[in-house]
Amino acid sequence: MEKEKLILITNDDGIEARGLKSLIEVVREFGKVVVVAPEESQSGMSHAITMKFPLRIQTVKNEEGLEIYSCNGTPVDCVKLAVHQLLGRKPDMLVSGINHGSNASVSIVYSGTMAAAIEGSINKIPSIGFSLLNYSADADFETSRIYVRRIIEKVFMNGIEKGICLNVNIPVGKEDELKGIKVCRQTDGYWQEEFDKRVDPDKREYYWLTGYFNNSEPLADDTDEWALKNKFVSVVPIRIDFTSYSRIEELKKWKF
Amino acid sequence: MEKEKLILITNDDGIEARGLKSLIEVVREFGKVVVVAPEESQSGMSHAITMKFPLRIQTVKNEEGLEIYSCNGTPVDCVKLAVHQLLGRKPDMLVSGINHGSNASVSIVYSGTMAAAIEGSINKIPSIGFSLLNYSADADFETSRIYVRRIIEKVFMNGIEKGICLNVNIPVGKEDELKGIKVCRQTDGYWQEEFDKRVDPDKREYYWLTGYFNNSEPLADDTDEWALKNKFVSVVPIRIDFTSYSRIEELKKWKF
Repeated sequence: MEKEKLILITNDDGIEARGLKSLIEVVREFGKVVVVAPEESQSGMSHAITMKFPLRIQTVKNEEGLEIYSCNGTPVDCVKLAVHQLLGRKPDMLVSGINHGSNASVSIVYSGTMAAAIEGSINKIPSIGFSLLNYSADADFETSRIYVRRIIEKVFMNGIEKGICLNVNIPVGKEDELKGIKVCRQTDGYWQEEFDKRVDPDKREYYWLTGYFNNSEPLADDTDEWALKNKFVSVVPIRIDFTSYSRIEELKKWKF
Repeated sequence: MEKEKLILITNDDGIEARGLKSLIEVVREFGKVVVVAPEESQSGMSHAITMKFPLRIQTVKNEEGLEIYSCNGTPVDCVKLAVHQLLGRKPDMLVSGINHGSNASVSIVYSGTMAAAIEGSINKIPSIGFSLLNYSADADFETSRIYVRRIIEKVFMNGIEKGICLNVNIPVGKEDELKGIKVCRQTDGYWQEEFDKRVDPDKREYYWLTGYFNNSEPLADDTDEWALKNKFVSVVPIRIDFTSYSRIEELKKWKF
């Protein structure tokens, strides 16, 4: 008999997020599930690790096939604690999300959801980050679950090469409105910041970070933003090696 | 007459760090300098942005050719505030550091210093992150300054292509001990975590994150870890596009 699979789940929206609950529901079909997720939202925390204060873990649930823990750290702290402290062995897969909001294009750089998947990949665990293009706390994950299931099946079937994880983004829509899955590249884009400057009761200025996403390129049909706009689920293979190999030869010509 | 250059400086060790002061000293030779740095250490904050509390800026110094501001946010917040709020125009260069400690290999993923450089690159500013392989607060940056100057000169001379920034790491040593500059790729490596588990006075367990760096590959002479071990300054060109292009064709065969 095949050994039961062990799957680690985390997210960056925190232990109470609907997206996390939807992900748990699907993943339980595949094996034993251990969830280690932040006790509060950690959106925008990227690959941050906690060095200034100690980490604490609370047991939220411990039933047959499902253990849930909350942690006072970042998504990457959750992965590190799970892999090196809580789990007795390396999990067969790490899934992160389902994030409330897009992590396509350059948003991957700021995303705690995708940082957790990248951390899984650094630890040589097949890892996937899932995001739904709806920032609302009460987003509907029904269609997402269909695609999450299909993609996890494919990853268990084919494996993911070392040093690679998957960035999966899912458009909003009912099952018959989505057009399937498209393998893409990261769109060249940026967040246009517009700081909201205010004055507090003591007459001191402060700023709220706000902004909106912009493409830096026309949307070619091999980009994740094009796929999402056209109601495809986008899958981008992500490297943990950030080297620009094409620029190495160019830089060598500089004769430092 | 050539327009005076405007150079933005930030770091992740905070406004009081010796490495920042060393960097300011060198960069002032090139033009007008504006520093926006975290008021406290933000090591390990990666590309985190602050969404839960408002950002505040304090003027630390405002003299001819040098303005210094501290900010209560992350290194990436500092870059965003500088570029979109404080500076009247896009700076001609962003330099981050000099970090106290290595950001070679996979450490780039956790580094606030390199996240600031990547954020500069997202904003289409030629950006460089500098790190010295000495974690000590009173590290000696004398030799570093020689290499920082040389690399900045080369970047102003040659420019850096859009979407690329430089990750520069400098070994410890006197000028005659270092062997020059080597263009490299990011070494495949990981941090081996060893959580320090303790019990607080209320008998509750807590964990301090500790660990040490490991290579995942034999050190070939094109890697940054090899260069540093052999007393070369390593320069790795870093992409903001995380797509693994080589895996796209492979994934397309999965027939989702």
